[in-house]
Amino acid sequence: MKKVFLLDSTLRDGAQSVGISFSVQDKLKIARILDELGVDYIEAGNPGSNPKDMEFFELLRRQPLGHAKVTAFGATRKKHTPAEEDQNLCSLLAAGTGCVTIFGKSWDIHVTDILRAELSENLAMITDTVRYLKEKGKEVVYDAEHFFDGYRANPAYALETLRAAHAAGADCLCLCDTNGGSFPDEVQRVTKLVCERFPVAVGIHAHDDGGMAVANSVLAVGAGASHVQGTLVGFGERCGNANLATVLANLQLKQDYDCISPKALGRLTSTVHEVAEISNISVHRGTPYVGQNAFSHKGGMHVDGVVKNTATFEHVSPERVGNSRKILMSEVAGRSAILEKVRAFYPEIQKESPEAAMIIDMVKHMEHQGYQFEGAEPSFELEVRKLLGTRPKFFELQMLSVVDEPQSDRKKKPACATIKVLVGDRLEITAAEGAGPVNAIDGALRKALEVFYPEIGEIRLTDYKVRVLDSESATAATVRVLIESTDGKEYWTTVGVAVDIMEASCRALMDSIDYKLLKSRRCAENAAPRTETA
Amino acid sequence: MKKVFLLDSTLRDGAQSVGISFSVQDKLKIARILDELGVDYIEAGNPGSNPKDMEFFELLRRQPLGHAKVTAFGATRKKHTPAEEDQNLCSLLAAGTGCVTIFGKSWDIHVTDILRAELSENLAMITDTVRYLKEKGKEVVYDAEHFFDGYRANPAYALETLRAAHAAGADCLCLCDTNGGSFPDEVQRVTKLVCERFPVAVGIHAHDDGGMAVANSVLAVGAGASHVQGTLVGFGERCGNANLATVLANLQLKQDYDCISPKALGRLTSTVHEVAEISNISVHRGTPYVGQNAFSHKGGMHVDGVVKNTATFEHVSPERVGNSRKILMSEVAGRSAILEKVRAFYPEIQKESPEAAMIIDMVKHMEHQGYQFEGAEPSFELEVRKLLGTRPKFFELQMLSVVDEPQSDRKKKPACATIKVLVGDRLEITAAEGAGPVNAIDGALRKALEVFYPEIGEIRLTDYKVRVLDSESATAATVRVLIESTDGKEYWTTVGVAVDIMEASCRALMDSIDYKLLKSRRCAENAAPRTETA
Repeated sequence: MKKVFLLDSTLRDGAQSVGISFSVQDKLKIARILDELGVDYIEAGNPGSNPKDMEFFELLRRQPLGHAKVTAFGATRKKHTPAEEDQNLCSLLAAGTGCVTIFGKSWDIHVTDILRAELSENLAMITDTVRYLKEKGKEVVYDAEHFFDGYRANPAYALETLRAAHAAGADCLCLCDTNGGSFPDEVQRVTKLVCERFPVAVGIHAHDDGGMAVANSVLAVGAGASHVQGTLVGFGERCGNANLATVLANLQLKQDYDCISPKALGRLTSTVHEVAEISNISVHRGTPYVGQNAFSHKGGMHVDGVVKNTATFEHVSPERVGNSRKILMSEVAGRSAILEKVRAFYPEIQKESPEAAMIIDMVKHMEHQGYQFEGAEPSFELEVRKLLGTRPKFFELQMLSVVDEPQSDRKKKPACATIKVLVGDRLEITAAEGAGPVNAIDGALRKALEVFYPEIGEIRLTDYKVRVLDSESATAATVRVLIESTDGKEYWTTVGVAVDIMEASCRALMDSIDYKLLKSRRCAENAAPRTETA
Repeated sequence: MKKVFLLDSTLRDGAQSVGISFSVQDKLKIARILDELGVDYIEAGNPGSNPKDMEFFELLRRQPLGHAKVTAFGATRKKHTPAEEDQNLCSLLAAGTGCVTIFGKSWDIHVTDILRAELSENLAMITDTVRYLKEKGKEVVYDAEHFFDGYRANPAYALETLRAAHAAGADCLCLCDTNGGSFPDEVQRVTKLVCERFPVAVGIHAHDDGGMAVANSVLAVGAGASHVQGTLVGFGERCGNANLATVLANLQLKQDYDCISPKALGRLTSTVHEVAEISNISVHRGTPYVGQNAFSHKGGMHVDGVVKNTATFEHVSPERVGNSRKILMSEVAGRSAILEKVRAFYPEIQKESPEAAMIIDMVKHMEHQGYQFEGAEPSFELEVRKLLGTRPKFFELQMLSVVDEPQSDRKKKPACATIKVLVGDRLEITAAEGAGPVNAIDGALRKALEVFYPEIGEIRLTDYKVRVLDSESATAATVRVLIESTDGKEYWTTVGVAVDIMEASCRALMDSIDYKLLKSRRCAENAAPRTETA
């Protein structure tokens, strides 16, 4: 197995994404997570352009990482300025990292139009910068910015810039598709040529503007590159950098390259979600390998195939990347998919039993009303248990009244929800205000029930979706509400359907609470069996 | 320019995405949008597996599309069953489309393990099915399911299956990477070989499980394929199908292939967003070409470069795909587009006037809040008129209070809205009940205002859509409500944004009424000018 070195730039190029703004603490957390995953280089910031980054480098020096090398990112020296007097290079050295990433221009129009320098001066800037940093004992990764565009426009000059970096002692020549528009066959061909010409490590840094960053990275490795830059979740300028999780899984599971340990690969899904969570950005559900839908099967034939032999509709086993298979229920899936779901909590169910028939009927009936259980398995489990008489009654909602004054031209008053719940033989009546009526219901439900079940305090809602079903009925249309919750350990989604959006939301909220209580009772039962509490 | 034919499968493979559930009306709308874009084939459903699809085929027959051919999707005949007796083939014929997509097995383990048939029987199933459909006068696209996996496992047999389809008269042999795990160099090599062996159109159908569906499609075309299957927004099983918008933009803008008209390409961004909106799924912000961030520049050097020369950090011009550049620090985008809209009702507006600056500021501010005026021009007109002091005050909402008891276990009481409006110097206070709180508000508003403006009775609401914007804020998230109304002559859509869904709905409802009154006043003015009534 040939080793491929990974450089993660979440903290530098990723921080240039729309909507991302890392605190120093965020950066520290992400650096530790990437280090534990086994990434080889962590590009931690641009100390010259962002003074906040300096504090971070200082912290990293005091608490060093286990495996990864930290690298600071910056430009070649300014034109007509000696390297030792260049402000930016001083900041790079002050960051105190063992490795430095230097980007320089390979595309002639960038030299003439953006730097407004002579082509020869740009070569001198590259030479001087790399040589100076090597003299200071640094490992130098040279990022050849816009290399593929530059090669297309003026191949001789683009290669000249690499020669300058190589002659000055760069440890790695990284070819960047900065604008993200290059095609895989071209990237493969040009990378191969560079690998043949320069006896040094060659890298690839791809952006996704043509939707081909992963393919460009993978084909560059096939052509001889041994260093891949990207960001674990795919964050980055515009359409993002190459998604490093996808690249490494492709290389390691499909092509026998060595990127990270198989054990770390087995945690890839949770690692990616942790980084995304810290960044306050959700992982796109369809993300290869690690997305929530990456191993979800919905079409009837797909479900049927996977049940017979998982390889028939899965390119790899989800376990190898720490993800899991999801069989979705829907009108396009069949009876066997539904019963497969039931088996998860009721293993004794028989395919031809009366219970099975009742469950299938219930699903059909509820789907006709507008329910959709795919991705909302907790609500499905609760409905099946109700049908079979095994759903514990944790509480009964006796009254819920909401008053809202949604005046639009003046300052809005909060909505107010009044609630009465029965738990065992005890009644609790209370009220709560909220930013809107659903928020108020949420607050009131928790307030009333936390008295009896303190673990409800662990629930945090992470997603709220509303779908108007028969939208032609306008304001009298049926709505479906999906609510995603977490208790810090697990995520679950529940569903409610009604004409009244508050009623639909209330159902999904109550299911979420019921599921949490069912879950914690299940844990307790596994520890020590006891009788029902409610 | 070589023509590449596009087959969009949003309505079939896309409907197999998690979270997608199309109504027949949704399907009709999407088919028309794809047709207008210039897609060549629309794979509209699987009539054999989903009876709901039959109704849709019937509707399409009655109102045919302009350019696109509708195609019905189904499997080869069942084993040991004559084609003319096969239920599924009967349904396919009953769908009445000119073109049919037939999928068959190319991978030997699928034949033996899933179909549990002899390898020779599978060949007979392919031959019989294609021949039967050709005899019935159909154009036949043959989808070779799992072709690349099959070719890897048993190349001779995989080619045998293509030979069977070709000999039976298939018009196109489409190579499917059903599990989505193939690599671009392999897809390129194998596609080239197939193109050389079979003198017939060859297609590519890629899935994104390795994050390389776009690259696989593009390289297959480079290798000789002339037919590309995908879904416009990238919907589909698991990680999705090849994103057709990305593929067609890559082929047409970078490689000189002809997919759709340049004019339609110039509307690509809005087209993709319309389809996503109907599907109630947001377009991932980083989507190549059409995502909100696809041409957003944040890093200082990037912004500097783009200001000097856009080609320095953009692989294509955003205008070519109907997207726009966003400079995140100093917003300059959209100005002329906004003023173009203002001219529709205020032709005198000057580009450099203080009014123009005020309007741009207002739009930026409201878009930041979550407003979206695309498709909701009436609300835009009303906001601009308010800003310029030319919005007539037809009524003032003085009080609105809603009481709802969304109890879920017993019979639900109707929601009740109490309202007080001021018209001129007259107050009207009234109340109405409704199926839900929004329906009650709608009823109360009309009841109060019809006293003064009988023409409100002509308004009928025809669509109601709710979009949760920052869904991670869960029940405290901002929601955007779009309401479509008609008076029998014209349709118009208005928008409201607020944390409280009732407030957002109320704003959209009030805008709808205001717009209707503005419209009827405008008609009256054109007939005979008179003074303002309120």
